[in-house]
Amino acid sequence: MTNTLKQFMDEQILLIDDELYSLVDSIQAPEQLKESMLYSLKAGGKRIRPLFVLAVNQFFNNIQKEAYTVAAAIEMIHTYSLIHDDLPSMDNDELRRGKPTNHVVFGEALATLAGDALNTFSFGVLARMQNVSPEIKVELINLLSVAAGAEGMVGGQVLDIDGESRSLNLDELEKVHVNKTGALLRFSIESGAILSNASENERAILVEFAHHIGLAFQIQDDILDIEGTSEELGKTAGKDVASNKSTYPSLLTLEGAKKKLNEHYEIAISNLSKLQGDTSLLRELTEYIVRRNK
Amino acid sequence: MTNTLKQFMDEQILLIDDELYSLVDSIQAPEQLKESMLYSLKAGGKRIRPLFVLAVNQFFNNIQKEAYTVAAAIEMIHTYSLIHDDLPSMDNDELRRGKPTNHVVFGEALATLAGDALNTFSFGVLARMQNVSPEIKVELINLLSVAAGAEGMVGGQVLDIDGESRSLNLDELEKVHVNKTGALLRFSIESGAILSNASENERAILVEFAHHIGLAFQIQDDILDIEGTSEELGKTAGKDVASNKSTYPSLLTLEGAKKKLNEHYEIAISNLSKLQGDTSLLRELTEYIVRRNK
Repeated sequence: MTNTLKQFMDEQILLIDDELYSLVDSIQAPEQLKESMLYSLKAGGKRIRPLFVLAVNQFFNNIQKEAYTVAAAIEMIHTYSLIHDDLPSMDNDELRRGKPTNHVVFGEALATLAGDALNTFSFGVLARMQNVSPEIKVELINLLSVAAGAEGMVGGQVLDIDGESRSLNLDELEKVHVNKTGALLRFSIESGAILSNASENERAILVEFAHHIGLAFQIQDDILDIEGTSEELGKTAGKDVASNKSTYPSLLTLEGAKKKLNEHYEIAISNLSKLQGDTSLLRELTEYIVRRNK
Repeated sequence: MTNTLKQFMDEQILLIDDELYSLVDSIQAPEQLKESMLYSLKAGGKRIRPLFVLAVNQFFNNIQKEAYTVAAAIEMIHTYSLIHDDLPSMDNDELRRGKPTNHVVFGEALATLAGDALNTFSFGVLARMQNVSPEIKVELINLLSVAAGAEGMVGGQVLDIDGESRSLNLDELEKVHVNKTGALLRFSIESGAILSNASENERAILVEFAHHIGLAFQIQDDILDIEGTSEELGKTAGKDVASNKSTYPSLLTLEGAKKKLNEHYEIAISNLSKLQGDTSLLRELTEYIVRRNK
């Protein structure tokens, strides 16, 4: 990781977390519910989606205060999806980022409700932003609802569960990931551009960029499940192979998956070069998430 | 039930259902997810919240097309909350409105995700409304997020679960219901007024009206758990007594609960009389839900 990127991440993650925690702290709700919501928000996520909101926003101008709010709303959605995915009836994971999962600590009922509350809260957070026009708020809420819902993340999770009981082909596997993880990452990148009043053309380039890093990110996830250790990953490694799950390495071999990852990485980077301006931070952030070892 | 109310309900429920089903049908998502979402939407709910949106909207003017969209969004939130409440880790109900609950038919994972998708979708539905200003959309989204989330419905459900392991006093019980069922009913009534550009004073009167019918509604629910049969209710009767749950009858006796219900009903009705115009339909709808036997 370059020094520029390290400094950006160190500084911005503190500010993202401040916004995230203070938004949830301000909720008037039963203490145990807030505790459960905050537990998973504070469980040490990499904040990749929020960082992309800010990096895109910074590409166009100085980072706007509202970009932290959008970043926080996205992290709430991401976190709720992890809480629900970890439930016994879903992936049944007891360990996430090296810590006991939400339902292990708070019980299944409260974990389900904490996820529900984070989901619902994120839309209110966008609706209440200061210094953003109602038109832009409505656009962001619409896009987040599509990205996070049946047509995006939730739909992708359904396809993913479906894929556990049968082998997927490459197109089907790609569709799982475009929806399950890609849609929210795309919204992160697009929302940073929307807040900056980016042109239609710039948005289209960034959406294409987002599509390919979303896939690269997921392929790296599949590779790490094979090459990483549980200690490094903070979750159980080798789960995909053990459960016979269709993954990029299982369909393409490990070597083929690495080649595919590189293709998506190259297309993502080539899209950045179509933009006027200094894209070095976006490039470094892309490299970081594609080359990460956890 | 009067003929006027019967005609209103017969006509409007058809139109509400049309809007609700066509919105969900239009989603591009895995078939089993849509099936699961539609299964619970079509399970024969009384559509009380949507009917209040329309009755309030009609009080101020002819029913606006957008009122059906808001009504549908509210019914999606209500339905998602029932799907999640019925899960084995929550109330563990296998029967709802006389039919097997969502997770019994589709499994817990899909039921959880169908609930998540309905929750998320409702906010996009509001954001995409035609002929409503962005300012009003943002106001509706903000209020729905508060009513449905940690400060409203979800928070109330947490308090309700908490109340299963200990006795609640009357204030605590009221707080459960003001949040768990009252908040969304209040939003139904307030949103009908917002769409009609009601004055601040009219809104305040209707919010007070909503507060009291919300409590009356819940007290009647508690009474029906004792006096109704499982067949009439379409769900297991006598559950509260069997589980030693704090309810209005358990705290006030059955007679005392009926008296309390009547107090709230009278205050609700007295608020209606503060409004200029023909409140007979709102009055009849209130009477209907308070006197219902299921």
